[in-house]
Amino acid sequence: MIIDILIDKILEFQNPTVVGLDPRLEYIPIEITAPIISRLGKTPEAAGQAILAFNKGLIDAIFDIVPVVKPQIAMYEQFGAPGIAAYIETAAYARSRGLVVIGDIKRGDIASTAEAYSDGHIGATDIFGEKQTIFNADFVTISPYLGADSVAPFLANCKAHNRGLFVLAKTSNPGSADLQNLTYNERPIYEIMMDYISKWGADFMGKYGYSSIGAVVGATHPREAEIMRSIAPGTFFLIPGYGAQGGRSEDLAVCFDKRGLGGIVNSSRGIIAAYQTPEYRHLSYAEAARAAALAMKEDLRRHINIGGGLA
Amino acid sequence: MIIDILIDKILEFQNPTVVGLDPRLEYIPIEITAPIISRLGKTPEAAGQAILAFNKGLIDAIFDIVPVVKPQIAMYEQFGAPGIAAYIETAAYARSRGLVVIGDIKRGDIASTAEAYSDGHIGATDIFGEKQTIFNADFVTISPYLGADSVAPFLANCKAHNRGLFVLAKTSNPGSADLQNLTYNERPIYEIMMDYISKWGADFMGKYGYSSIGAVVGATHPREAEIMRSIAPGTFFLIPGYGAQGGRSEDLAVCFDKRGLGGIVNSSRGIIAAYQTPEYRHLSYAEAARAAALAMKEDLRRHINIGGGLA
Repeated sequence: MIIDILIDKILEFQNPTVVGLDPRLEYIPIEITAPIISRLGKTPEAAGQAILAFNKGLIDAIFDIVPVVKPQIAMYEQFGAPGIAAYIETAAYARSRGLVVIGDIKRGDIASTAEAYSDGHIGATDIFGEKQTIFNADFVTISPYLGADSVAPFLANCKAHNRGLFVLAKTSNPGSADLQNLTYNERPIYEIMMDYISKWGADFMGKYGYSSIGAVVGATHPREAEIMRSIAPGTFFLIPGYGAQGGRSEDLAVCFDKRGLGGIVNSSRGIIAAYQTPEYRHLSYAEAARAAALAMKEDLRRHINIGGGLA
Repeated sequence: MIIDILIDKILEFQNPTVVGLDPRLEYIPIEITAPIISRLGKTPEAAGQAILAFNKGLIDAIFDIVPVVKPQIAMYEQFGAPGIAAYIETAAYARSRGLVVIGDIKRGDIASTAEAYSDGHIGATDIFGEKQTIFNADFVTISPYLGADSVAPFLANCKAHNRGLFVLAKTSNPGSADLQNLTYNERPIYEIMMDYISKWGADFMGKYGYSSIGAVVGATHPREAEIMRSIAPGTFFLIPGYGAQGGRSEDLAVCFDKRGLGGIVNSSRGIIAAYQTPEYRHLSYAEAARAAALAMKEDLRRHINIGGGLA
C-alpha cells in the first residue's frame, strides 16, 4: 500500500514534511538561468530546462531528509509543452532519488475525461494498443466538485497501480469558505466531503490504520482540522498553508495522532526560495533549502512526536 | 467583448453548436495513424501528431458552419508534453480558421497557483521578464471548489486580454448531484454558484445582454437549467450532455431566450466520430463530421429560434 511506503519514510526520516516544488523563474539563481538563456533565448524551452536544473539541485539537497515532494503542475503547465516535460522529468528524478511524488494537479472532470487524467497521471495511457506510463506520480490531488463518479476512475488506478489520492476537502486559502463552509443539514461541505473520502478510502487501508485515499486539509484552519481528524480517523492529511500562508506548527498538531502520524505538511517557497531570505542569504540555494527543511522538521517536532507510540 | 464575438458568430451561422475536440486514438482513421506510427512508432509523439492531423481535418470540415470548438485538455494531457503540444497547435489552427476556442481545462487552485494557470491559458506567461502567449484560448472552463479568490486571477486576465470563462455550476454527469445539489438555506449549491457567476460577470456584459463570464449547465438537467436561466438572465451557458449523454434539444430550449440566444450546446463524439456510426459510415471522417454537425444544427433549430427577435 503506497500510504505505508509514505509513512515508513516519514518514520525513517522523523519528518512529516513535503517540499512543494512550485518553481518560479525568479527563484532560480542566475548561475542556472544565464547559460540556458544564452543557448535557448527567453523561450518556454529555456524556462523548462532552468526549472528542471533548479529542481534537481533541490532534490539532491533534500532527498535524504525529506520523504516527499509535491510538484505543482500549474507552475510548469504555464510554459506549455516544455513545462510539462520539465514536470515529468522532475517527478522521474525525484523517484530515482527515492522520494515519494505527489502530483498536485487538482483535476476533476466527468468520468470518461477523468479516466484520461487518471491514466495519464497515476495509471497507464493506451497508445495505439500499448499501455504506457506518462506522468508516473505516486499520489495526485483531485478536486471533487463533480461528485463521486468523477473520482471513481482515479480510485480504479489506485487499486490497479498501487497509487494514492489527496482529495480537496478544506483548502488553505481565505476563499475556501465560500463553498466549502456552506452547511447542508448543519454540516459544512468539507465535512461531507470528508465522509466521502473516508468511504472511498476504506478499500485502501494500510498497516498504520491510514488509507491511501487522503484529504487536503489546510493548516490555516486548526479548528476545522481538529473536527476532520475526529470524524475521519483513518484519513491521512496533506496539509498546505504552513509558513508563508500563516499556518503554525502548534496549530496543525491536531491533525496528528499519538504516534505523530496522520499527515504531511507542505512548504514550498519557504524551502525552495529560502536562499532569498535574510536568514539563509549566506548559503547556496540548495544548501539553504536543506537548512530550511531541517529547521521546519525541528519546528514540527516541537509539537508532533513522530513515531512516539511505536516500538 | 469576447462574448459578442461568440454570439455574432452564432447568429452568422445560425448555429449554437460547439464541437468538442476530445480525440481518442480509436476515433482516428488508419490512413492518418499508419504513416505516423511507421515513422515514430507507438509513442506519445505519434499520438500527438495523429491527434493534430485528425483535428485539422475536423476543423477544415466545420469551420464555416460551426462557431466554436472546445478541446478537452485531458485527452491531450494524457500523452504528456507531445499531447500538450498538439492541444496548443489545435487551438492555434482553430483560431487561424476563425473559430472561437474554449479550452476545457476545469482548473481551480489557490490564488497564486490560479494565476499561473490563468496566465498560461488566457493571458501571458512571464518568461524571464518577457510576457509570452502560451495556450491562447478565448474562453476556459474553471472549477469553483476553492472559492472566489481562486477565480479572481482568471477574471483579471479576462479583463486585460478580452477573454471569457465558463465556470462549472451544474455539470452533466450523474454524480453532479453529490455535491452540486446539496442545499444551503434551501438553495442548491449550483444556484449559489450561479449567483457568484452573475456577480463576477457584471463587469463583462456585452451588447446582447450576456456576459463573457458564463456557466457550465448540463443539458441532462432541464428542470435545473430552467431555474438557472431565470435567476441568471445575463449568464451565457455552455451546455454539455447533448446526444450521447442523453440531453435532448427539446429539453435544453429552456436555456435560450426569445432571440434564440443564451447558450452553446456541445457535442463531441457524436460529431468527431460520426463516421464510425451506421448513419454516416459511407462518408470520410471529415465529411461525416460536417454532416453530423449540420444535422445537429437542424435538430437544435427545431426548438431554438436563433436570431428570431432580432432585426
